[in-house]
Amino acid sequence: MNVFEYRAGQLMAEGVPLADIAAAVGTPVYVYSRAAFVGPLDELEAAFDHIPHLVCFSVKSAANLALLKLVAERGQGADIVSGGELFRALKGGLAAGRVVFSGVGKTGREMAEALSAGILMFNVESAGELALLSETAGRMKLKAPVALRINPDVDPGAHPYVATGLKESKFGLAPEPAGELYLKAARDPNLEVLGLACHIGSQLLTTAPFLAAAEKLKNLALKLKEAGLGLKYFDLGGGLGIRYREESPPPLTEYAAGLKKLMAGLPGLTLVLEPGRYVSGNSAVLLVRTLYRKENGGRRFVVVDGAMNDLARPSLYGSYHRILPVRRSGRPEITVDVVGPICESGDFLAKDRPLPETEAGDLLAVMGAGAYGFTMSSNYNARPRAAEVLVDGDRFRVVRARETYEDLVRGE
Amino acid sequence: MNVFEYRAGQLMAEGVPLADIAAAVGTPVYVYSRAAFVGPLDELEAAFDHIPHLVCFSVKSAANLALLKLVAERGQGADIVSGGELFRALKGGLAAGRVVFSGVGKTGREMAEALSAGILMFNVESAGELALLSETAGRMKLKAPVALRINPDVDPGAHPYVATGLKESKFGLAPEPAGELYLKAARDPNLEVLGLACHIGSQLLTTAPFLAAAEKLKNLALKLKEAGLGLKYFDLGGGLGIRYREESPPPLTEYAAGLKKLMAGLPGLTLVLEPGRYVSGNSAVLLVRTLYRKENGGRRFVVVDGAMNDLARPSLYGSYHRILPVRRSGRPEITVDVVGPICESGDFLAKDRPLPETEAGDLLAVMGAGAYGFTMSSNYNARPRAAEVLVDGDRFRVVRARETYEDLVRGE
Repeated sequence: MNVFEYRAGQLMAEGVPLADIAAAVGTPVYVYSRAAFVGPLDELEAAFDHIPHLVCFSVKSAANLALLKLVAERGQGADIVSGGELFRALKGGLAAGRVVFSGVGKTGREMAEALSAGILMFNVESAGELALLSETAGRMKLKAPVALRINPDVDPGAHPYVATGLKESKFGLAPEPAGELYLKAARDPNLEVLGLACHIGSQLLTTAPFLAAAEKLKNLALKLKEAGLGLKYFDLGGGLGIRYREESPPPLTEYAAGLKKLMAGLPGLTLVLEPGRYVSGNSAVLLVRTLYRKENGGRRFVVVDGAMNDLARPSLYGSYHRILPVRRSGRPEITVDVVGPICESGDFLAKDRPLPETEAGDLLAVMGAGAYGFTMSSNYNARPRAAEVLVDGDRFRVVRARETYEDLVRGE
Repeated sequence: MNVFEYRAGQLMAEGVPLADIAAAVGTPVYVYSRAAFVGPLDELEAAFDHIPHLVCFSVKSAANLALLKLVAERGQGADIVSGGELFRALKGGLAAGRVVFSGVGKTGREMAEALSAGILMFNVESAGELALLSETAGRMKLKAPVALRINPDVDPGAHPYVATGLKESKFGLAPEPAGELYLKAARDPNLEVLGLACHIGSQLLTTAPFLAAAEKLKNLALKLKEAGLGLKYFDLGGGLGIRYREESPPPLTEYAAGLKKLMAGLPGLTLVLEPGRYVSGNSAVLLVRTLYRKENGGRRFVVVDGAMNDLARPSLYGSYHRILPVRRSGRPEITVDVVGPICESGDFLAKDRPLPETEAGDLLAVMGAGAYGFTMSSNYNARPRAAEVLVDGDRFRVVRARETYEDLVRGE
């Protein structure tokens, strides 16, 4: 579903001209479409309709409370990686019993918070973490629900920074030590072994690595079952790719068919999925305004009011985001670098990009900015963080106010 | 001056054991040393004592109000790149008349704020910006003080993201168009031409590129003088390198001697310097606590409670920061990756680093974290930003409180 389309030469978010939002709220601003965000959530429900499953939205990809409310309304859950994300998830109305806590560096405090809240399970990533979780639960006279995160050693073919399932990565546990740790956890009165988990990376464009990882996980699950462990959850993580440019992510039906077939061999287990980017990635644009055009040494620059502090992905990962003029001008295309005001050459949104000639004041939409956009934004160069707006049909509302200068020095 | 030294096996910040700060304030925490911060500021004053000069501290490198107060107390100025940094500078007690406003993307609003405050000068980076500044000043019935930022096309030999003086960079103006723009500015009743500026990059380890750039700027200054322009300021920017690892930055005396000789040929001009990292870089450590040790596929990991959201430099630039144990253990060294809790393989503070064996609970100090440390930090993974502490002798105080969960959702 593409809800960001031109109508009479104007780029829209659903029924609202993006120019209207810029006029009302200013720029830079993240503009989310409700329809674009809930579309993938509902498609996931439909695709896995006939098998026991739980969709846990990955909060790290997009964490605005208004978005989390949409997840909660669907009876879906959350994949969190910190106490802050737990706080957000609960504040967004998500049921604690549908929250899975992943991550290599959970602190004792975060564990206690999650135990108090009564989350579904902890995806434990090391022996040390399992020991601390047991100790924490014991002190609280609670039983901690546990899955172990297995590192299946599968190459997802993604950016090295977001490939997380290689055996040399910091994530998870190799299958053998995990097997031993499972038996240890099963004997621990402070722990309740509930499941298996893995997560092999982000922005995957084929289903084969998912199925390879799931197969390895399944083999371990069958062994554990033989050993008498009563497992309930089979958590395959997230990582489904989306189209930023010309990518061809596999259809959801293909992914679902493969997993359904696999799950048929694991009766009694509920499939847990942790989609993030797949849901949020194309749900938002970053709307920026052109400040200046300039030319240096034969290179042409369009200087806009959004920067690497607003959207880190181009600078950090070299990510490609499409950029569209908000008003179709019919001007000829020229090749430009779209850069921000930050004092680093690394502050760019696009390089060598053909774009219709852009004049000061023109609005540009940086597409596919919904995932790892606002959540990675900072106050670098003392720039107040952008506003966030949610569009629903022909209405929009600010779901996060633009920061003020006073916000910058809070706590000092 | 190294104020972070071991005393009886304990790493200190001046007279305070870092372990005491961690116990009182928690981790992760940025710990600044007053002595380490003001040392370079005072050395700069001494080195340029006998020529007219103004040291404008680069706020983007470290912007805590407590640090800016130390700059203000010395009668020094600030190099700012945004309205937010102007707000910080003034709030920190800096005199507006000693503030220089750099940056390629100043907005009309930011210009108006700086004009109202009465800053020393705008370093203008494009013809479009000059036009907007003139228009803004005209509307406010003020005269905008102006320097043009010249792009001298000098390779600083630094990371491509922080090399800013190449002719293909987004920064500044080539000398020829700048010359024409100067004459235009001189005729503009809303503008007062005051100076020339350049800034060729960051973390430079030789003085030659500075002098090459200064020489080019000098040639332009002499031409403009001939053309009748009454210039007052010669702004050479910042970029002086520091030692993170084994670097050998040139002694300040060498840099000063070269510039003093050059300035002798420019009577009546005041030298403006914009040091950032040189002042703040080695003024702070990021103090983190070890959460877990783990081993995957032959790699050993030390998982700490500080992450790429706290210190982006290793992930973003591949920067090297020394890491020291806060308590000398005498344990043997092993090679580890020091990683944070964030769910990305790119979340590391060090890779393949020989470190004495580290146990859960051990404190580690990430050295040289004062510049582009806290100012680049974010709430990624819903992690509250770290506290900042300033040490002075045997006392310390929190100069920025650790963020709370409530802070994360402010404005939503």
